[in-house]
Formats: sequence, C-alpha cells, structure tokens
Amino acid sequence: MKTKDTTNTLLKLRKVMASAIYTNHPLKAIIVPSSDAHQSEYLAECDLRRSFISGFTGSAGTAVITQKEAALWTDGRYFLQAEQELDTNWILMKMGLKDTPSIEDWLCSVLPEGSYVGVNPFLYSSSSWNKMKIALEKQGHRLLETTEDLVDQVWDNQPVAPATSLITVQENVAGKTVREKLNDLRQRMIKNGVNWLVLTALDEVAWLYNMRASDIEYNPVFFAYSVVGFNSTHLFIHQNRITDEIKNHLTNDVTVHDYDSIIPFLEQNCSSEKTWLSTNSSHAIVSAIYQIYRVTTMYSPVSMTKCVKNPTEINGMIVANNRDAVALCRYFHWMDMEVPKGNVTECSAAAKSLEFRQQEDGFVSLSFATISSSGPTGSIIHYCPNKDDDKPVKADQLYLCDSGAQYRNGTTDTTRTMHFGTPSQHEKDCFTRVLKGHIALASVVFPEGAKGFWLDALARMHLWKVGLDYRHGTGHGVGSFLNVHEGPVGCYIGNSSRVVPFAAEVDLKPGMVITDEPGYYEDGKFGIRIENALLCKKAETQHNFDGKEFYTFESLALIPIQQKMIDRSLLTEDEISWLNAYHHRCREVVGNMLKQRGYEATFEWLMKETQPF
Amino acid sequence: MKTKDTTNTLLKLRKVMASAIYTNHPLKAIIVPSSDAHQSEYLAECDLRRSFISGFTGSAGTAVITQKEAALWTDGRYFLQAEQELDTNWILMKMGLKDTPSIEDWLCSVLPEGSYVGVNPFLYSSSSWNKMKIALEKQGHRLLETTEDLVDQVWDNQPVAPATSLITVQENVAGKTVREKLNDLRQRMIKNGVNWLVLTALDEVAWLYNMRASDIEYNPVFFAYSVVGFNSTHLFIHQNRITDEIKNHLTNDVTVHDYDSIIPFLEQNCSSEKTWLSTNSSHAIVSAIYQIYRVTTMYSPVSMTKCVKNPTEINGMIVANNRDAVALCRYFHWMDMEVPKGNVTECSAAAKSLEFRQQEDGFVSLSFATISSSGPTGSIIHYCPNKDDDKPVKADQLYLCDSGAQYRNGTTDTTRTMHFGTPSQHEKDCFTRVLKGHIALASVVFPEGAKGFWLDALARMHLWKVGLDYRHGTGHGVGSFLNVHEGPVGCYIGNSSRVVPFAAEVDLKPGMVITDEPGYYEDGKFGIRIENALLCKKAETQHNFDGKEFYTFESLALIPIQQKMIDRSLLTEDEISWLNAYHHRCREVVGNMLKQRGYEATFEWLMKETQPF
Repeated sequence: MKTKDTTNTLLKLRKVMASAIYTNHPLKAIIVPSSDAHQSEYLAECDLRRSFISGFTGSAGTAVITQKEAALWTDGRYFLQAEQELDTNWILMKMGLKDTPSIEDWLCSVLPEGSYVGVNPFLYSSSSWNKMKIALEKQGHRLLETTEDLVDQVWDNQPVAPATSLITVQENVAGKTVREKLNDLRQRMIKNGVNWLVLTALDEVAWLYNMRASDIEYNPVFFAYSVVGFNSTHLFIHQNRITDEIKNHLTNDVTVHDYDSIIPFLEQNCSSEKTWLSTNSSHAIVSAIYQIYRVTTMYSPVSMTKCVKNPTEINGMIVANNRDAVALCRYFHWMDMEVPKGNVTECSAAAKSLEFRQQEDGFVSLSFATISSSGPTGSIIHYCPNKDDDKPVKADQLYLCDSGAQYRNGTTDTTRTMHFGTPSQHEKDCFTRVLKGHIALASVVFPEGAKGFWLDALARMHLWKVGLDYRHGTGHGVGSFLNVHEGPVGCYIGNSSRVVPFAAEVDLKPGMVITDEPGYYEDGKFGIRIENALLCKKAETQHNFDGKEFYTFESLALIPIQQKMIDRSLLTEDEISWLNAYHHRCREVVGNMLKQRGYEATFEWLMKETQPF
Repeated sequence: MKTKDTTNTLLKLRKVMASAIYTNHPLKAIIVPSSDAHQSEYLAECDLRRSFISGFTGSAGTAVITQKEAALWTDGRYFLQAEQELDTNWILMKMGLKDTPSIEDWLCSVLPEGSYVGVNPFLYSSSSWNKMKIALEKQGHRLLETTEDLVDQVWDNQPVAPATSLITVQENVAGKTVREKLNDLRQRMIKNGVNWLVLTALDEVAWLYNMRASDIEYNPVFFAYSVVGFNSTHLFIHQNRITDEIKNHLTNDVTVHDYDSIIPFLEQNCSSEKTWLSTNSSHAIVSAIYQIYRVTTMYSPVSMTKCVKNPTEINGMIVANNRDAVALCRYFHWMDMEVPKGNVTECSAAAKSLEFRQQEDGFVSLSFATISSSGPTGSIIHYCPNKDDDKPVKADQLYLCDSGAQYRNGTTDTTRTMHFGTPSQHEKDCFTRVLKGHIALASVVFPEGAKGFWLDALARMHLWKVGLDYRHGTGHGVGSFLNVHEGPVGCYIGNSSRVVPFAAEVDLKPGMVITDEPGYYEDGKFGIRIENALLCKKAETQHNFDGKEFYTFESLALIPIQQKMIDRSLLTEDEISWLNAYHHRCREVVGNMLKQRGYEATFEWLMKETQPF
C-alpha cells in the first residue's frame, strides 16, 4: 500500500469549489462519499471518486474537503491501511473511537459562518441527505446540490462508465416472465395507492427485466433505472447497449430511454402523482417528486419479492451449488495433496479454485474476491490475498477459504476452514464451537413470523459459553444469479460491520436463501468460519401451534466439513446425527456427480472425508 | 360473571359531557382508559373507572362514550368475559381482529364535524395523548383536557383513595440511603443537563425514599410524586400520612407537599427550566413544563438504576427466595399427600400456599393473585381461581401453580407444574421441552451488551422443533420488595400480551433479576410453565473475547422440578447435569433450612424429589 500525493489534485478541486460553476454559490466544503448513483455496495472503477481524491482505497469511507482541510472517515477495519495511504494533506477520522467527531460536527467546527457545502445529489441517499441538511442548517450553513460531480472535473483519465454486454435470462431460469413480474408489481402499486414506482437499485432493475451484464465486478448488473406505471414501463439505459436481441426480449411492453433522461422524465411525468420510492434512492431521484406525492418505504416491492426465490430459481440455486461443490471438492482434494509439499501460496490457491470453477457448466464469474488465507491472515475478516505480498499456505496452519461464484442459474457463497497437518487442541475446540453454532442455525425449526435476528444467538451461544464471539453478522441474503449480498433478509443482532446493510426485520419465508456463517478469529493467529447458503423451507412438524406453519432450512452447499478439526466430546448426539446426514447428502449428490464426471480420485477423497463420524 | 346495567350511569355521564362544566366546550365523546395518574399496571379500587362505567372488569381495556354510542376495546384474553359483562349499551371492539377499527378511526367515523373529545389528562400518558391529539386534529376534531374526571362525577359510592400506613426500609435492606440515591441521581441530572427531575411511577418514588405501603394490592407502593432539584427534594403525598417516624426518616432533606399540589409546583418552579420527564408520565404532568424545557426519555434514571440490584438487595432477594422455597416445599409436599385424597380445590390449594407463606419471617403479602389451576384451567394464561366457581384439583390432571410473595427484603415469583398421578407421554414430552427451554436460558453465557430479547429463542427452540410455542414473553424484571413486574429489562421478542410493558432493549447487567418462564398451553386441556427468578451475574469464562465481560444467571428460586414429568430420552448430558446441580442446591440450601426448622417430613419429601436424575 502506497501513499498518494494529493496536493495538486486538492488544489485544483478547491479552485473548482470556489468557482461556483456547478452551484450558485462558492463552496466552502464538499462531501465525497463511497457510492454510485444507485447506492451499490461494490463500485465500478469510474465511481471510485473517494479513492481517487484521497488516495485511500479501502471499500468504506467518506472524504470531506474544505478550502483548508481534508479529512477522511473510515472504520476500524481500515485504520492501518488509511494511515499508510493518506498523505499529510489528510486528517484520518477513526470512526467508532470516542473522540472522533461526526462529519456534521467536524464541518460545523471548521466552517466559517453561513457556509455552503456541496454534494453530488446522486451519490447521497435521500435519508443521508436529509440528516446532513438538518445538521448543517441548525448551525446556519446550507447543503447544496452540485450540477456535476466536482471530483470528476479534476479527475484526468477517469475510467469511462462500463457498458458490458447485456444478456437475457430465460423463463426456464428466471421462473417468471417480465410481464408476470410487472403484473405482480402493479397489484402491489394498487394496494399501496400509487401511480408510479421508481427502481434505482441495479439488482432490482436486472431482476425485473430478466437481464444481466457485468458492469460491476462480481455483480451481474448493468447501470440503469426503471419507472413502472400502470400503462407504461420505462427503462433508462445507454441506448447503444440495446442490441436486437435485447430489443426483442423487451418487446413493445418496455419503452427504452437514455440513462441520463431519468430526472427530466420523473419531473415531467411523475412529480405530481403518487410515486413509490425507496428511502435508499438518491436524493436526486427522490427530490424529483414533489414531497406530498412521495410514498417512501425502506425496501422497494421488488426487493421484498426478489428475496423469496420461486421454484425455478430455487432449482437453479441447487444446481449452481452442486456444480460449485464439484469444483470445491476437486479444489480441497488438490489442496490436501499439494499444501504439504509446500508449493502453494494464498494467491495460487485462489487461482486454482477459480480454474476448477471455470470448468463448470454455466460459470460466469466469481461472486466476490476469493478469501484464501493461511494462519494469521485468516484472522482478518475482509482479507484478500495480494500478489505483491503473497504468502505460503502452510501445512501447520489453519487455512480459511471463503469463495463463491456466479452461474447462469444461481449464485454461491461457501466457506471452509481446513488444516492440512495436525491442528492444536485449541484450534479444534474453537472450530467445534463454530460448527455447533452452524448446526444450531442450520437445523433450527421456527414459526412463521420469525425474523432472522431472533436466531442469531443460536449460532453464537456455544462460543459465548467459553467467552468467545465473532464481530460480524451470522448471515446475509444471497441473490439468484445476482448480488451475493442481497437485502433485506439476513440473520444478525446488534452492530455488525460485515453484513449490516443486508439484514433487517423482515419475516423469514420459504424460498429465501441466507448464509449461515459463524466464525472465530484470533488476531495474528488464525481464522475459522464455516459457511453454507441455506434455503428456507416448510418444516413437517408433529404439531402446528396456533395454526401456524413452521419453517426450517436446507443446506444448499454440499462440501465436507473437515472431521479432523472436530472435538467429538463437545458434540451432542443430535449434532453428530446432523453432521452424518449432511455428509451423506454430500456423498449422494456430489459423489454421484464426481463419479459421472470421471473424477475418481476426488470421489475417493470425498468418501474418506464424509465417513460416518 | 354478570352483565351490568349501565343505562342510567351512561345517561348521567352524557349529561355531564354536554354540560361543559369541566371543559370549555360540550363534549361529543370521552375516552376512559384503564389507568391511574401514575400509569400503574395494577389499579386501586378507586381507579377502576373503566370497569365502573362499562361493567367489564378485565384488567385491560379502553372505554369510549359518545353522545350516542358506547364502545369498549379489549384484547383476545378478554373477548368472552367482555361479551358476558357488557350490556346492550355497549359495542365490543375486539382488538387484534382484522375488521376492528382503532379508537381514533372509530371516533372519526361516528363524530359530527368539529367535535370536542375529552380525556382526564392524568390518566393518559404523554405519548398516548400526542398520538390521539394528532389523529383527531387531522379529521378536524379537538382533544380536550377535563378539569375533573367525568366518570368520578357520576360514580356514587366511589371508593376513597387508599392511604395505607407508610413503612420505612432500613439501609441494611435497601443497601443505599435516600441521600446516597439522591446524590447519584443528581450526578445523572448533571450529565443530562437538567435542573429538575420529575418522578411519577409509584415504584420509583417508593424506591427513592426507601419507603413502602400497600395502596395497591400486591404492590407495596403509595400514591405520591417526587421532584428532585439540585438544592431541594420534594415529595408530594397526602400530608396526613406523614407520621413522626416518617418525618424522622425523611429528615430535613425532603420537603413534603400535598399530593394535589404537584401541578402548581411544577408550573411555578420547573416549567421554564430544563426538566427531565419520562414519556410514560401523564399528559397532565408533562404539559406542566413548557415544551422547549422538556427533556424526555422513555425510562427515568430511577428506573434504569433500580433494575440493577445492589449487593444488599441481592442478598435480600436470595433470603426472600429461600424462605419462599421453604413455604413452597411444604406446600407441594402437602399437595402431594392431599390431592390424591380428592379434597383439594383450586381455591383451597391457593389458600394453603398462602398459609405456609404467612409463617415465614418478613412475609408482607402475595406479590400477585396466585394462579392455582388443575387441567383445563391451566391453559388460561392469566387464570385466577374463583370462589364462586371453584374447581377440584384432580390427581389425573396437570396442576400449575404460579405464585409469589412480598417479603420485607425481596419479592418472589415462581411457577411449578406437577402431576399427582401418572402423566401421559404427551404431557411429559411437552413438559420436557419447556424444561429444556428453561435450562437453556438459565444456563446461557452471553457477552456484555446483550439484550434480553437476544436470548428469547433459546427458551422456545425445543418447542418449535415439534411445532409448539407459547403466546407470552419469556421473562420480566422483578422488583426488590417492589412490583413483581418491573421494567425496563426482560426477555422477549415480538408481540407478547403477558409481559410487554416490562422488557425492552436494555443491556442485561449483573445485579438484574429477571424471570425465566417458558410454557406450553393446550386449550381446554392443560397448561405447563416452569418459572424461576434468575439473578444476572458475572461468568468466569476461559476467554474474554474483545476484552469483554461475559455474564450468566443464577437461579434464585430453589424448588424441585418434578422428575416424573421428564422424558429423560429428550435431555442431553449437559441438561441432566444442570438439573442435578440445581437439585443439589435445593438440598443444600432449602434442605438445611427445613431440617433446622424441624420440618422433617418435608425434608424427606425434598430428598426424594431431588434425587440425582
């Protein structure tokens, strides 16, 4: 990680701020968040404005530049990295520490009286905008929308916006046609008393139109907005991306507009009619509708529908996970043979797992950067191996691999922790407690109406027993050939840096897919995580109290859990039964596939790894 | 349960409403909630206005009387009782059913344009008042404060307000002097930037002044308010209650005012200074302070301090529970002998348990009406045996006894479910699952910062496994020689009719006492509940992740859990160990007390009931 000299860029930026070209008033400060116009989790290169202006390349942070100061707020995961990357122009604001001011408080303490502060209104969600506006106005300042992004004005060689090839998802994969999805949405619009629905999240637009692309790495989405009315459907996308195939797919039902015409369209057609918006949409979009006509909810109706997979999508998720299991079994078998020889590195291991996945039908890309970590690096929860500082995978250390892929019919996300030598008793003890938590969530039965956060403690209680815990949520929703982190369902309580935006007070329902990923991390020593994607499904219970349905989970990922890591004396009979039944399913499903594909040695490895415990 | 003829009373009430004597305008409607001026859970006889006016005697409900209609809202526990008690003047509004309107909606649908609606401002919490006011004003109506309670004007022979003898709690029981408590409160007032603190909840006033009485059945409290400033402390109470002993106890630190002078005092002294109020206080109290000077929190600082028992109070709770265990062991031993003879009824059993308790040192009263139920009545969660319809306790039915007492040094609340014959396999199965839930909560270890609701699922998961559940919360806080339901801590998720007001998002801390009371109820057949009060305390864990402390619970109630009800095959080794260790403590503590007191036969019974399982 290198320090970036930002002196000249800041000089140019401050001139633009003072010029008042993109606002009616010279700006005393601008705020540069880590965001795009769709409030995406992962960003395209062209949207890494905060990285460009500050030099800090971590995924989370906000830069604030005044005429005199420049400050960057980021959280505990990134303090070290930010210290290394920021030059002396910058003040590092360590979020979560007692003495660190909020952006609002800091701004008010350094700004001259009656200052104007600018933000690109597309990069700030409506709720963030309102909060900042109120805080600044209380102190006599004003928050202004800039007509262009000011960082873009000083960013030479800014990458162009991606426009990757659009592909369609056929009904035998999507399970519903675009027309069916639109009909369903219009029913919900009637119920909610609105004339228009505005969709701004990229995965929601991709889902509605049964289309995919790869504008953002790992996320099969494309830059677009959509507006749905009762008699018309509008897609806003750079028009040169619409091939004949796509035109055909969209039929006459959908009117295609240029991406940049979304605001004028909203102003002309929707601003004075009841319009449904998510509070996560940008301030630019939300403020195009007159306040009294806005009907806002935290989650859009697409988000609430999309998280419940239909039978076709469920089948696709199963097929994708089974193919992924073949690749991962081949990979872990290979690791079992190669690591003890001493020639495997964290990067070469990750590359090998990609190689096996690429041989699977329907593979599109990884669903996130593979976490391949040996020993100490495993304790860094968001670790990603780095070619410039590659490390060997050692046979006397725990190896943690969290990886997943996009297939044409589903998305996967699986973590296994393995030892290729002899684990210590402490490592086995911790692993077994993580496993007990994983099993507790995977096998729980619960009534309809239960929320994910009700169940979080089940995954932690065996670690708590000995004073251990993990600093992340227990699970997040998974998209169907869409984003690997998908809202709004999930499983966590309290503060969680890892999956916060993707889990909320939404009822768990059959068809939802969430991850089950308890872990334990010992700083500078090792990391343990055991993660399967789980499908929520109806449970067959002896009773049905209050006439309620009861639900449970089915593990989608079928990859052996390493038995040498387990301290059997810590498991109950029920837990041993769960493990044996799980490994039996691995044999039945993945074993058969390995045999059919002629991977005899891997089949033998699987049989050995899944022996009844 | 009898129907009450309310025709004449309603006639008189409507005349008062129309007369405009107690408001500036004739009223088109009044709202009569189930409440007193202190928003107490249990009410004194003189405050049962809603019962008087409607004839419906259940504990929860709101009456609304217009010039033409009279309607009563209550919840599912009381539909049957309300149908029986209300006469034809009344419309029963069944809360929770889809087609039942809210009070606001119903009022707006029946009121003529621009109506005035009256409420006694002491009986409505500030938050309820604001909600109702906004709803009525939206439809062009107005909510008015009445200068006197209108029901009181038509209530002949209304019981007088209670004024029972005040007693003091000495430092060796309270653990802190009044002066120490005031010093502590003033520190919090400084932190919160206020000049005054207003206390309206009766148990908060009783706690602060180390005084008790018995103005409300089961609750050792007295009608009073308190206002704390930096240089003065004010107690508002009917002055003729202040004996020389009490005067001496209060010393010169406290100025005593008449109960009714609270509002003029607030208006003269506090209305224009920063004043700390709970949003649970009445509208009358809150509105005595100008809005810009109000500093409101949901919980008062006394409520937050009081729920963490100091070492002296903890010791008192232990002593009270041990004495209660002696009484209950004698009682259950007696039941074991007498029920099979066929002469015990639900009422006579309850009377017998009171008799045993009355023989214990420091006994003051019961802490709530004893629930003594055999077979079908056990499935009614809020059941209370009735002399007019007494039922035999049968040896071939499950017997559920939920009872508790006020001792001079602590409050108890314990439930045991027993069979005095041969239980069915189904009853044993259900009992064992309830027990597994009870043990899961009683033995959980959790990190500092955990909230009660995180743990609720632990008490339910074994019932959920077979499609069972219970319709109430898992636990509530318990006062220290104070209210048996004490906020704000507790353990529940979601909607819960039984303990809703007494559990919230407050961190669990050592010194807190909550109940652990999972159950299962089969309508018309039987009820099962196993309840102990638990003391939260520091856990000695092998590790301390993130430098955090870990906490666990200690069972305060030491009464055998009937082993014949347990299906051993459903228990894990850990659960059996917990049960044996618990029963060992029963022997050590209660067994010794029984021996010392010469209750040899009960001692033998205890030994038999607590044999290693």
